[in-house]
Amino acid sequence: MRPEPAAPASTALLTDHYELTMVQAALRSGAASRRCVFETFARRLPRGRRYGVLAGTGRVLDAIEHFRFGDAEIALLRDGKVVDDETLDFLAGYRFDGDIRGYAEGEAWFPGSPVLVVESDFAHGVLLETVILSVLNHDSAIASAASRMTGAAGTRPCIEMGSRRTHEEAAVAAARAAWIAGFAATSNLEAGRRWGVPTAGTAAHSFTLLHDDEREAFTAQVEAMGAGTTLLVDTYDVERAVEIAVEVAGTGLGAVRLDSGDLLDQAQEVREQLDSLGATSTRIVVTSDLDEFAIAGLAAGPVDAYGVGTQLVTGSGAPTAGMVYKLVARSDDSGRMVDVAKASKDKASVGGRKFALRRRDARGVAEAEVIGVGEPPLDDGDDRTLLVDYVRAGELVGGEHVALAAARERHETSLAELPRSAHQLSQGDPAIPTRYV
Amino acid sequence: MRPEPAAPASTALLTDHYELTMVQAALRSGAASRRCVFETFARRLPRGRRYGVLAGTGRVLDAIEHFRFGDAEIALLRDGKVVDDETLDFLAGYRFDGDIRGYAEGEAWFPGSPVLVVESDFAHGVLLETVILSVLNHDSAIASAASRMTGAAGTRPCIEMGSRRTHEEAAVAAARAAWIAGFAATSNLEAGRRWGVPTAGTAAHSFTLLHDDEREAFTAQVEAMGAGTTLLVDTYDVERAVEIAVEVAGTGLGAVRLDSGDLLDQAQEVREQLDSLGATSTRIVVTSDLDEFAIAGLAAGPVDAYGVGTQLVTGSGAPTAGMVYKLVARSDDSGRMVDVAKASKDKASVGGRKFALRRRDARGVAEAEVIGVGEPPLDDGDDRTLLVDYVRAGELVGGEHVALAAARERHETSLAELPRSAHQLSQGDPAIPTRYV
Repeated sequence: MRPEPAAPASTALLTDHYELTMVQAALRSGAASRRCVFETFARRLPRGRRYGVLAGTGRVLDAIEHFRFGDAEIALLRDGKVVDDETLDFLAGYRFDGDIRGYAEGEAWFPGSPVLVVESDFAHGVLLETVILSVLNHDSAIASAASRMTGAAGTRPCIEMGSRRTHEEAAVAAARAAWIAGFAATSNLEAGRRWGVPTAGTAAHSFTLLHDDEREAFTAQVEAMGAGTTLLVDTYDVERAVEIAVEVAGTGLGAVRLDSGDLLDQAQEVREQLDSLGATSTRIVVTSDLDEFAIAGLAAGPVDAYGVGTQLVTGSGAPTAGMVYKLVARSDDSGRMVDVAKASKDKASVGGRKFALRRRDARGVAEAEVIGVGEPPLDDGDDRTLLVDYVRAGELVGGEHVALAAARERHETSLAELPRSAHQLSQGDPAIPTRYV
Repeated sequence: MRPEPAAPASTALLTDHYELTMVQAALRSGAASRRCVFETFARRLPRGRRYGVLAGTGRVLDAIEHFRFGDAEIALLRDGKVVDDETLDFLAGYRFDGDIRGYAEGEAWFPGSPVLVVESDFAHGVLLETVILSVLNHDSAIASAASRMTGAAGTRPCIEMGSRRTHEEAAVAAARAAWIAGFAATSNLEAGRRWGVPTAGTAAHSFTLLHDDEREAFTAQVEAMGAGTTLLVDTYDVERAVEIAVEVAGTGLGAVRLDSGDLLDQAQEVREQLDSLGATSTRIVVTSDLDEFAIAGLAAGPVDAYGVGTQLVTGSGAPTAGMVYKLVARSDDSGRMVDVAKASKDKASVGGRKFALRRRDARGVAEAEVIGVGEPPLDDGDDRTLLVDYVRAGELVGGEHVALAAARERHETSLAELPRSAHQLSQGDPAIPTRYV
């Protein structure tokens, strides 16, 4: 077969063409060295959502570390006449040397929350726009959907199995984001390797169809994997399959999986059948295009775990988080910082460097996202400051805020302090208002 | 900064856990060596769509070539106790040795179209399920949306600029898929490097805000990029900006970009203003959350090019193509091939190896997707056979069908033979029916 175009060791070309031409023009005008504050935020939540969940910050920091223009990248840009030689010289020496602050990964966010703030000269900061937004928009969309699913599932585990429904690398990132938002495992082996997410799996219909009959297939699976395995029981007739499954595996059968039909009805029937056969501890796993609403609808059923695929990896109707990366302040010729904002119709932005805290009442329940423009808002005693330092002068200083276990815990504690309305699946306004002060 | 978990040289772990455990069970039962036919198809088109466009086949073949379990992969699977030693031995020697046929990349598809058919023993074929579906579901979703956009745009060019709204690697694949479906360029530099897609870009609002005023910003850009550049004119006041733009660049200004407000009204006003200033050849580029409907709505306006972001990379409401990978035939103990199909409620499949042709009338207009079960359907003289050979006994034999230029041309010719109803944006049935014979 033909050779694959090699994957880039550098992340520098995962970038929009115009970031480089803007650097060229700014180098020419001298503005490239102006000190700039770029803020990443979403103007709104996806329609009807009560909160968002931040994911991807750890991947962003990795991408920035690998954002270098090596010989191969420079040659491409030269051959393609993307930018001039002066700009190529600048790019060849590029290494991000500014500061990055942001919300801790796993944190809830609301319209306007400055989830990632980059401060550097213009040239160093503008180049990172595309890759920062790619990562945060994708990963946060998945985590935001995942959070609603684990919320709807309550104490029952959710298993991520959407790899086949999204780009093969997006799948790995999706498994990571879902883990942050409380999923119990993923089907994706690379997510296990790269991020340490626990992996799990059952069996496909093809395995049953491969064998001469269901009994032979179940026997093969139980002999290979042990009675604790999960048998898929809807290839032909569910009732007959459950009967065979318990005959083959015994009452110690780990679980059965239902992947079609009316899951609530079937779970009820299968539970009764399993119990009548003495397999009272055999669990029922359901799959089949589940989303947060279907999961909530199954709450009354005897379901032990949810396998979620398509709707998880496509953000359950909101496949991108709508984050933008905007210049909000920059220095002038005298070195003084000046707030800036565009006045575009329907897309105006709020100029000035932002600070953020979550206002909480005396019982610790969140009341508002308070965003201070130009200076930090006053903590009234029960509040929580939201911006942490990630990078100072190009050096990572806040790695602990993106450790995956910490992000998963942050998600849980951040969600726990939101008002109860945050957890409603019905369409509504953000769970707390955003207030600029 | 901390080291990034290295990207895999192998694609073998971009795979669901259960593919490997099924191999283990099938090796144990002996069924792993049964000859199998796996078919990739979609049960239906996304709601209201008239046709789908196949993209990703070239990337699938690359992924299969790199689907090897090296020492690192084996160590991970051993440490994680994913499968037993016998299975690890099998995996260590894995190299796909079967046959692959499918539709040419860029081809239109319909419900049931067997777009990729894998024939091999069970173990060799089942392992490829996840990565095949990841690539085809993603890339075909993007190409299908892109095709409606280029159709709506007619002869006006569409520029892909959605990288920031999707996973950073999905962005590269999206640019490739959009190119197949007729987009003229992408903003994504890595898509330029990896796939040779032309790259293009304008400037962001941050560039204008960086400078003390619009005139300074435009001057910097024109000095650096030449008068042929595209100036963004909606940061403050459009009318004033257009005036400044022509003053700075002269009547030879390449283009202006509008990114907010009522694009149809504004394009009209800007066109009149440009003409009155003598900049009659200056083009108008519009962006701002365009989809195929917005593009169609701008057909009457003096718009010269469309920049499309979010809606392109999220499949314009259909972010995944809904393709599945199903076992449809396998050998029995005597070596005879047996058709197989699951009977699951609401997800039954059609057993048997499929062949496909596009039935065309005497004028060459497509009339039906004819799928022969078990044997090829009869060509009535004007028809077109759809399956081409890609891989025989593990060796690539059909690389020409996935060359990117050929895929782009295939998209154009395939679309041209569909009935006119295919190009309607209103919700409707597939443009041609699928007939099993």
